[in-house]
Amino acid sequence: MKTFQLHPQIVGADALHLVNKDKPVLRDGEVLVKMRAASLNYRDLVVARQTNREQPRVPLSDGAGDIVDRHPSATRFNINDRVIPFFYPDWIEGSPSAKKQQRALGGSIDGVLTEYLAVHETALAKMPEHLTYAEAATLPCAGVTAWHALFERSPIVPGSTVSMLGTGGLSTFALQFAKAAGARVAVVSGSEEKWAEARSRGADYLVNYKTTPEWSKKLLDWTNGEGVQNVLDAGGPRTLDQSLAAARVGGNVSVMGILGGVEGAVGPMPILLKQLNVRGIYVGSGEMLSRLTQFLAVNKIHPVINSMFAFDDAPQAYLALEKAQHVGKIVISFD
Amino acid sequence: MKTFQLHPQIVGADALHLVNKDKPVLRDGEVLVKMRAASLNYRDLVVARQTNREQPRVPLSDGAGDIVDRHPSATRFNINDRVIPFFYPDWIEGSPSAKKQQRALGGSIDGVLTEYLAVHETALAKMPEHLTYAEAATLPCAGVTAWHALFERSPIVPGSTVSMLGTGGLSTFALQFAKAAGARVAVVSGSEEKWAEARSRGADYLVNYKTTPEWSKKLLDWTNGEGVQNVLDAGGPRTLDQSLAAARVGGNVSVMGILGGVEGAVGPMPILLKQLNVRGIYVGSGEMLSRLTQFLAVNKIHPVINSMFAFDDAPQAYLALEKAQHVGKIVISFD
Amino acid sequence: MKTFQLHPQIVGADALHLVNKDKPVLRDGEVLVKMRAASLNYRDLVVARQTNREQPRVPLSDGAGDIVDRHPSATRFNINDRVIPFFYPDWIEGSPSAKKQQRALGGSIDGVLTEYLAVHETALAKMPEHLTYAEAATLPCAGVTAWHALFERSPIVPGSTVSMLGTGGLSTFALQFAKAAGARVAVVSGSEEKWAEARSRGADYLVNYKTTPEWSKKLLDWTNGEGVQNVLDAGGPRTLDQSLAAARVGGNVSVMGILGGVEGAVGPMPILLKQLNVRGIYVGSGEMLSRLTQFLAVNKIHPVINSMFAFDDAPQAYLALEKAQHVGKIVISFD
Amino acid sequence: MKTFQLHPQIVGADALHLVNKDKPVLRDGEVLVKMRAASLNYRDLVVARQTNREQPRVPLSDGAGDIVDRHPSATRFNINDRVIPFFYPDWIEGSPSAKKQQRALGGSIDGVLTEYLAVHETALAKMPEHLTYAEAATLPCAGVTAWHALFERSPIVPGSTVSMLGTGGLSTFALQFAKAAGARVAVVSGSEEKWAEARSRGADYLVNYKTTPEWSKKLLDWTNGEGVQNVLDAGGPRTLDQSLAAARVGGNVSVMGILGGVEGAVGPMPILLKQLNVRGIYVGSGEMLSRLTQFLAVNKIHPVINSMFAFDDAPQAYLALEKAQHVGKIVISFD
Repeated sequence: MKTFQLHPQIVGADALHLVNKDKPVLRDGEVLVKMRAASLNYRDLVVARQTNREQPRVPLSDGAGDIVDRHPSATRFNINDRVIPFFYPDWIEGSPSAKKQQRALGGSIDGVLTEYLAVHETALAKMPEHLTYAEAATLPCAGVTAWHALFERSPIVPGSTVSMLGTGGLSTFALQFAKAAGARVAVVSGSEEKWAEARSRGADYLVNYKTTPEWSKKLLDWTNGEGVQNVLDAGGPRTLDQSLAAARVGGNVSVMGILGGVEGAVGPMPILLKQLNVRGIYVGSGEMLSRLTQFLAVNKIHPVINSMFAFDDAPQAYLALEKAQHVGKIVISFD
Repeated sequence: MKTFQLHPQIVGADALHLVNKDKPVLRDGEVLVKMRAASLNYRDLVVARQTNREQPRVPLSDGAGDIVDRHPSATRFNINDRVIPFFYPDWIEGSPSAKKQQRALGGSIDGVLTEYLAVHETALAKMPEHLTYAEAATLPCAGVTAWHALFERSPIVPGSTVSMLGTGGLSTFALQFAKAAGARVAVVSGSEEKWAEARSRGADYLVNYKTTPEWSKKLLDWTNGEGVQNVLDAGGPRTLDQSLAAARVGGNVSVMGILGGVEGAVGPMPILLKQLNVRGIYVGSGEMLSRLTQFLAVNKIHPVINSMFAFDDAPQAYLALEKAQHVGKIVISFD
Repeated sequence: MKTFQLHPQIVGADALHLVNKDKPVLRDGEVLVKMRAASLNYRDLVVARQTNREQPRVPLSDGAGDIVDRHPSATRFNINDRVIPFFYPDWIEGSPSAKKQQRALGGSIDGVLTEYLAVHETALAKMPEHLTYAEAATLPCAGVTAWHALFERSPIVPGSTVSMLGTGGLSTFALQFAKAAGARVAVVSGSEEKWAEARSRGADYLVNYKTTPEWSKKLLDWTNGEGVQNVLDAGGPRTLDQSLAAARVGGNVSVMGILGGVEGAVGPMPILLKQLNVRGIYVGSGEMLSRLTQFLAVNKIHPVINSMFAFDDAPQAYLALEKAQHVGKIVISFD
Repeated sequence: MKTFQLHPQIVGADALHLVNKDKPVLRDGEVLVKMRAASLNYRDLVVARQTNREQPRVPLSDGAGDIVDRHPSATRFNINDRVIPFFYPDWIEGSPSAKKQQRALGGSIDGVLTEYLAVHETALAKMPEHLTYAEAATLPCAGVTAWHALFERSPIVPGSTVSMLGTGGLSTFALQFAKAAGARVAVVSGSEEKWAEARSRGADYLVNYKTTPEWSKKLLDWTNGEGVQNVLDAGGPRTLDQSLAAARVGGNVSVMGILGGVEGAVGPMPILLKQLNVRGIYVGSGEMLSRLTQFLAVNKIHPVINSMFAFDDAPQAYLALEKAQHVGKIVISFD
């Protein structure tokens, strides 16, 4: 079968190379998934750029496919079931733990950019029926992260305010989900050419962080000086100061990404003075993915796909992601 | 000013009679509200039928109007602000208590079926701008009850299942709110002529409890045998057995009304065996009303009005409610 | 190895008979536990009295022992580790579900009254070091039930009021745990000869339900008319009316046992009028057992053992439980 | 009556001067409290050092006294009731808000270092009967802060791990409360001469941050590498890096003080990578104070008083606080 691997001695998108491997042999409880689509996250660029890879690694965490075989002990799914592998195969449900997060697809273990994937039957969710493989392939990392931030820890109250950064895959999900749950949403985005699209998905307010570096002030204006109830920060250390400044007293700030890099430090006094709840959100559990798929099905929500690449063109998909000019997700289709 | 009162010696809708009284004199912290509309709840029939009234009582809890005067110490609102009085003037926020629920408009204290109402400024919410007085007048009891059951105690997870009984004011609110928050909703209603309307508001599934007395079985089918995550029961002792039977393991059952009467007893074993969360919901706090108005504004939701009566025709409004053939709320307009 | 079984054609304690069986053969992920002690719950009497047994069943859910062997694929424990099997082997963590509760030791599957038990390594907790096997054997059902009711669903606030019924194993646990967590505790018990012992464990208030059938009134007095914040009801349908009457507005009532039988019905109006939270508690998850063992270790709490029987005398242990004159737990020691 | 004021033009403890003023005249809903004791917090040093005082300000937030008079409209308390004023008179209950926190005793409004204090009857808690005025005077700021951090936002699970910094008033409270609620507690303290006292109050583990600047590593050792479940940080920007490092995956970090100063910035990556919950705790509501007093009464806990000063010696009390060599609280007794 065809598989992409990141080469141990190469750093960046060039590390990707196509190899031929034997199909995996199923162990106890495992099923074999014929992958049909995969999607990229910013995290996959970070992984590709890592310099400490000791062995080849199959990249990407997010994909969808069909069950084509199963070990005799695996009974949960049937052949031909359409499934989505969990980002963390061992984080089935409940609170996070170091142990549950140790194995992550396309990071500490091999990922989904491969024709066939062997995975334990407890680490898969059923695809919602209304989605294509390409759409379903966008969910495990970005979709679950947005869901987790909005609905799993002190869930947003319908009608309350939510702000988010950017118009990439994660923020587009957060916008779609928050609107479908009845919230009032502001999007902080430096690309005004994408605002119309954000508005068409329900964005109630838009701020340009390039022309307004202190964009928190605009969000305070938007909320009559009160501040935002639920601030989603996918930027990391460099945007968190503004996010803390934008939050209302007693508000929630979700630290859920590092699009602005991992360097930088933040003055914590607003956390104390405004009694904020600052929560780290690092993807989520399999149960969260299941709840997300149920939510998408009930509300007939389709993930926003920016562009599609063929399996053999995976390196181009990486390049497209690096340009960061997309709204929505970049997908690789295996057909 | 003109005011309706329930006569102490008369029981039922006949108890209503119109009197002339002086305008109230404002005390510390109070404002004067010129009422513009009021709405009826099943509870108002129960109050009218009570036989232990010791003095005349102004009926109805739910209304909306304009601030036309204020005590010098009252500073929270301005003249002409459009406002909605709280059902419980002393339950501003937080958990319920006997003390907070002691005073209730149109029950233990005088209500809103009057031209002018004196009320403490802490016991009022601002009207959402997109609503008429008639629409806003429907919120304090039925609207808040539906909101409380859905979003205040273990809030519904978007995408999860919700069931409700009937197509009256309370259930119509619950249907509108649950759909706007992304839930999957079943309505149990004996009046198939109203199903089209429920469907138009998003109902995903309908069951006729008259033709299917064991309607819980239909809800189990609807959920592939799993049971409903959030069961709203407005019927009381006579419907609760079916509601408990319809709930999934670990599910929530909201006991929020007594449309079927107060008599009857329930076998509690399903609570234990299915580890249910059964919660009594008796209207709610002022903060809940405020969150509700914010939710309605963001989602441009309009309460469903079944019929409107003039102030002097209030007795006819009671008769219309008794017939219980309405979808949505019965409103009295004061203009 | 020696094993007790409940005979399919015999009902009651007489159903117990001793057989010789082969040691179990370990399957993937399983370990072999040499049981060292087991304890009885009221539920075990109910199981013995069931008339619909289709095959012999090894009874009892609660035990403790040593790991003496493991399948090569089982790596979580070491030989000689002291462990406690979960009541529900498949309810590891998270919310309950029908699937997680399907298999229960000594009920739907074979239990622990056997010399050797094969169990999946994910369905075991480590014993706290300060406990004997006999003490540890009391935890999986009664200990976890008390823990679940007090600390897992809207955890009790330290300093708040808790009431419980009886002085059996479950209530004695609840008393110990609630006091160690800083609560104020009332015990409703018909056996005044056991009150001194309850007081020595910290009971702040005692009521005799035999001499005061409307014992809820005493609990209202105890709380200055306010009612109890957390009412634990292990009696079932016949005591629940009093439990609902004893609860404060907004209070919690845990339905956690059926010591008074499964028959009977309850007037649900107090649930509505006092906005109660009535929660079914049916044992709990493995994670709850782990948190419980941690709590016991930190607070050096020892379960209260009423009497000990030898393995071969298991039938006498059943008879002792039937008399229901015990404080604390009845234990069978295998040595 | 005698009153201390902070002089507008003087900065630091020298700003304190004693004046004679008229007794306050009671307004609607107010009672007059004869103060009997007050206590100091680090925050009072910060207030004294502020340079932007526009008018004289009566300092200190924490005190206790007797009700000696009441406005006719005030009915909640009786003459001679022993009471404790709330830190924030307008934060009665519920979530924080800018409005509720606007008025704070001894900060934005006059405080309790005065013989007579007029306060609205809704802004007082009853003293627990087992406490002296001096003991009760320690609760509103430090006591409530410790209570809030431990029990109000995702309450600590009994048996779980808690760490705290220092042996001052706030940390001594946190140690007492956490132990009475059944937790396992580590204290990070640079003063080994105070360790015996901390141990006598139940501290399970002690770390010296002076000899071990990377004290988080010791806390990781203490928890077998897992990290602490509930980290209380009273140090502020300079200690928060270590606090974040000490927390376990999914753990809680309470940002509740600025003993190390307000300057400094923190690398937020551990919040993301360990999915922490970082919560700002800035004192708390009146309801929290009431729950705290109930907790103290049930568990017969007495606040730890380090030293007592007479009313006229208030400046010496400030000097003692500045030396920061105390265990427990510094109190001013008015008798």
